[in-house]
Amino acid sequence: MTRRTGRRPGNPDTRESILDAARAAFAERGFDAAPIRGIAAAAGVDPALVHHYFGSKDQLFLAAMNFPVDPGEMLPRVLAGDRDGVGERLVRTFLSIWDSPAGSAGVALLRSAVSNEWTARLLREFITTQVLRRVLDQLDVAPAELPLRGSLVATQLIGLAMIRHVVRMEPVASADPETLVAAIGPTIQRYVTGELPA
Amino acid sequence: MTRRTGRRPGNPDTRESILDAARAAFAERGFDAAPIRGIAAAAGVDPALVHHYFGSKDQLFLAAMNFPVDPGEMLPRVLAGDRDGVGERLVRTFLSIWDSPAGSAGVALLRSAVSNEWTARLLREFITTQVLRRVLDQLDVAPAELPLRGSLVATQLIGLAMIRHVVRMEPVASADPETLVAAIGPTIQRYVTGELPA
Repeated sequence: MTRRTGRRPGNPDTRESILDAARAAFAERGFDAAPIRGIAAAAGVDPALVHHYFGSKDQLFLAAMNFPVDPGEMLPRVLAGDRDGVGERLVRTFLSIWDSPAGSAGVALLRSAVSNEWTARLLREFITTQVLRRVLDQLDVAPAELPLRGSLVATQLIGLAMIRHVVRMEPVASADPETLVAAIGPTIQRYVTGELPA
Repeated sequence: MTRRTGRRPGNPDTRESILDAARAAFAERGFDAAPIRGIAAAAGVDPALVHHYFGSKDQLFLAAMNFPVDPGEMLPRVLAGDRDGVGERLVRTFLSIWDSPAGSAGVALLRSAVSNEWTARLLREFITTQVLRRVLDQLDVAPAELPLRGSLVATQLIGLAMIRHVVRMEPVASADPETLVAAIGPTIQRYVTGELPA
């Protein structure tokens, strides 16, 4: 027997068992409260094998969601630079991912979240722990305001994805990305750094 | 035989045939280009019967979408009053419908639109011809800007519905409506009456 190499090492059945257990645990208990040890036990494997296959818990979540990009790599680049430009940079980056071949994974994820309560929970956990927490932590937002700012940002971005890629309403569906950056960037900027209702 | 009375007169099979034909025609040709005559022909009935059952073409569309409120009655009230308050009034009205028992019809419609291309087309036609056209016509917006303003409004409102009622991310999911009116109203206001990218 030769050892497998490449991006997806290990027995495919074992990998899938771990991913199934991770999806169930993250949806049921939430990302923070679901221990790797419990996921490993549910999949019938040693916790070390989970780390061996997937690396960190964040990366396990990415794999479980079949998520096309790693927010942990992408977001620091978006957040670098002047604070007043973060709204435009977020919209530009969001569009570049959704307009790429990876966007079809996003549409599939939206479809699944809308029809399936468990996927909706996973998506909520994912947006909160993998995206918004990183954005807002790094931007020095008051912790008490973080959830409202984050979920307001989510309303505008998920709606942009819905209208551009699912409902496909013109002219947003085929608008030049920079037109949308100019139109929607200020909204995101206000949700992230502007004044909030009490 | 006694004549039927009440809100839904006529033979149920005939009504359903007409609604099926209307959904197909509105999705395929668009609301404006789909004639009542063609819908009647597809359903195998006289055009007069379509008018008798459903009244106007707008009302036929409402019935075909199983839409819980009539934008033709609701919107003039929203649009009355000062132009600077239209963003807040739109968000307030939108929330009052989605937070009412009628909101479950909206969630069902979103679910269907996300998984079914035909419903997505119907929803797009509906938003464009029954909602946005009325909003923006009455507000004296430059006709060339109407589609972009309208679809920007749609991004924010459909995203609000998704996060509050489908993904249910907190605190937006259970926020007091007036908190959301204060936070999101200015976004809608800017999309409707503010400056747009060239």
